Amino acid sequence: MYKLSTSILQNRLFSSNNILKYYYSTSIPKGFKTGTYACGLKKSGASDICVIFSEKECNASAVFTENKVRAAPVLLSKSLLEQFNCSGFQSMVINSGGANACTGEQGMKNAETMSNLSAKLLKSKQPSVVMSTGIIGQQLDMKKVEKGIEEAVKSLGNDWTLAAKAIMTTDKVHKLYQKSVKLSDGKEVNISGICKGAGMIHPNMATMLCIICTDADVAKEPLKQALKHSVHYSFNSINVDGDMSTNDTVCVYANGMAGNKQISSTSSEDFNRFQSALRETAEELSKMIVRDAEGATKFVSVVVRGANSESDAKVICNSIATSSLVKTAMYGEDGNWGRVLAAVGYSGIHVVPNKISMWFSKGNGQNIGIGQKNDQDTCIQLLKDGQPIPLSSGDDKSAKLLSNKDIGIIVDLGLGQSTHTMWTCDLTVGYVEANSHYRT
Amino acid sequence: MYKLSTSILQNRLFSSNNILKYYYSTSIPKGFKTGTYACGLKKSGASDICVIFSEKECNASAVFTENKVRAAPVLLSKSLLEQFNCSGFQSMVINSGGANACTGEQGMKNAETMSNLSAKLLKSKQPSVVMSTGIIGQQLDMKKVEKGIEEAVKSLGNDWTLAAKAIMTTDKVHKLYQKSVKLSDGKEVNISGICKGAGMIHPNMATMLCIICTDADVAKEPLKQALKHSVHYSFNSINVDGDMSTNDTVCVYANGMAGNKQISSTSSEDFNRFQSALRETAEELSKMIVRDAEGATKFVSVVVRGANSESDAKVICNSIATSSLVKTAMYGEDGNWGRVLAAVGYSGIHVVPNKISMWFSKGNGQNIGIGQKNDQDTCIQLLKDGQPIPLSSGDDKSAKLLSNKDIGIIVDLGLGQSTHTMWTCDLTVGYVEANSHYRT
Repeated sequence: MYKLSTSILQNRLFSSNNILKYYYSTSIPKGFKTGTYACGLKKSGASDICVIFSEKECNASAVFTENKVRAAPVLLSKSLLEQFNCSGFQSMVINSGGANACTGEQGMKNAETMSNLSAKLLKSKQPSVVMSTGIIGQQLDMKKVEKGIEEAVKSLGNDWTLAAKAIMTTDKVHKLYQKSVKLSDGKEVNISGICKGAGMIHPNMATMLCIICTDADVAKEPLKQALKHSVHYSFNSINVDGDMSTNDTVCVYANGMAGNKQISSTSSEDFNRFQSALRETAEELSKMIVRDAEGATKFVSVVVRGANSESDAKVICNSIATSSLVKTAMYGEDGNWGRVLAAVGYSGIHVVPNKISMWFSKGNGQNIGIGQKNDQDTCIQLLKDGQPIPLSSGDDKSAKLLSNKDIGIIVDLGLGQSTHTMWTCDLTVGYVEANSHYRT
Repeated sequence: MYKLSTSILQNRLFSSNNILKYYYSTSIPKGFKTGTYACGLKKSGASDICVIFSEKECNASAVFTENKVRAAPVLLSKSLLEQFNCSGFQSMVINSGGANACTGEQGMKNAETMSNLSAKLLKSKQPSVVMSTGIIGQQLDMKKVEKGIEEAVKSLGNDWTLAAKAIMTTDKVHKLYQKSVKLSDGKEVNISGICKGAGMIHPNMATMLCIICTDADVAKEPLKQALKHSVHYSFNSINVDGDMSTNDTVCVYANGMAGNKQISSTSSEDFNRFQSALRETAEELSKMIVRDAEGATKFVSVVVRGANSESDAKVICNSIATSSLVKTAMYGEDGNWGRVLAAVGYSGIHVVPNKISMWFSKGNGQNIGIGQKNDQDTCIQLLKDGQPIPLSSGDDKSAKLLSNKDIGIIVDLGLGQSTHTMWTCDLTVGYVEANSHYRT
């Protein structure tokens, strides 16, 4: 029933203890097909065009970059979703090898051509949602793109791995996650998600795209809510270097072909099951982005607990996860908790210093510091109610814990009941080298 | 009249074309004396205690870290300024080699001991303002500190260089700037400023301290306003890695011994002259911090023009100056303007993409792109009204410009008349190495 994705073996960080989480179901959403082609946008000659087609019309929802500078495909797709009121979509077209950002009127015309041509060839009722990723500020070679779309349409099939590969840019591994969940009427619904992004490390290689297709029958409003919820806990809870691209897009299509009783409200048990599966898909895909980040040697879970609100917890998570000092300390396997505390303090959120406790852990840190006795091999407490815990040979213990690939930073604010988790990686010499000498 | 500070020759970035800016007047503020001692807080054996004394009572003003986690000396000094209503101060005591942060009640008692002991030995009317810098989470060795204060008081003299050296931690060069300005009554007033900080790169070496003494006669309110203004354009306009320490403090004492007609309002010409001199002192000191940043190879001026408000311009400056991608591109001398544009876009400030223009320059970029014809050797325009400028051999020109040590990134938003400048450095392999392996 489950297969291990071979792609995840290619990357150092993927070969951690957590590898067993990266299996996926062979069940793929009914009625969807994908096609790909290498039209020559990528110098490497790898595939760079992907089309996705659904036999039946889909409800759709999307979350776009909040960057004020938005690429043409983002502007077009957003307007299409509005124009057609998030329903009736059957097709999507994605290119890698060019972001179609900062390309003016011609760029907008090119995005429209991609949308209309793919829809026409796929006999889609409506124009396609369009995504682009690659270098900013260059016009797409539309001769190549048009040829690419024609050929991709001819190649329609069921191999989501090919689709995941066609949208890669600087990614070292392709990113695919599939999930099935049984609803209360006994019907199994299937979700297939692909994404690309190697951290936010290349905004000029406009960065993060995610496409999720499901055969669940979901009304527009619950689909929108489930996506919003899932993105909040996944793509909006990862950080590599704090940069945000002009093209980031997450889009979900639901064609209803699983035949389940429609999920029509956000208060049903089936909605919860569907949302939970969608969130898992998005979370696992987003973690793959962190693991694939340029130069990363650590996968760091930042857990903030005891906050007055989840939004407070998230702001503090983000402050810790974006701190260059915290990230370099993790790289150096240096138990430098003062840097974490400083990041908590400057987050802008009200905290009471003498209520703050802190731990480092191996693994994801989810259960560290709450109640049960923690093994010193699993975690080490550094701060209790604002006071450093005297460490006799503590630094050694910190260093030993931090020598793991998967590590946790756990902060308990001691104020309330709210919590949030964010995932990040370390800041390494490899990152600086990759990003400083990228074009030269 | 002006002497070149020898200290500035020791650091790579200091040996740039801009070196001639780092002269200072030999005039020192009347009535101030400084004393230093090496009491053993620093393993290196370098001086680590500094006392400052004014013959006459001073008006005082200070700006403290906005970090919610504040060290004991910050809490104490803030409360002393409030208690004595910013007047009557005669003494200050600073230690390096220990931040006295996260040290609980004992830490607060130790800060009070430093304040009271130094005031008593200096026969100061009131307790001293206290500053500490160094490792977080360790109690100060008060035997050493008390001995250090006693000896420092015995050594009182006029050598501000010794004072600048005694407050250093990871700084490679000491930082001193002195400035004189003639007021309308013909009286010359003198300002002497010292600071420490090598970027915000060691929040566990709690980071930025600045002490400014002047013999100008300035009433409390104009002194407060002038300091606030100066800090806004200096210490709050530099960035190394976006981290903010628990101990940051800037404090000014004014003893009135220049004998000028008191500057009693913020609307006078003399206020403007004094504020301008104070701002210059703070700006030059803050730029020295950027030049001394661990691993830095570039001094980058980020100029944002054409904004609807200065605060908008500053937010965008900060977004560019803190972007790891922009900073690594500068390190790699890579004309990667897409990263700058992305940082403008995600700053959260309203911008109109097709009104944005952008240049790279050598030097500080202050006059680039406004009116006069710009030499291609001085600057290169990359973006005009949101459209990339086709660069035939443009990349080479970019790379040539960016090979300078002092470079500018100039963004014109095309919206309004407001502008702001921020100073930052590049993100380098040296930075990561310094910060990842600092304790190991």
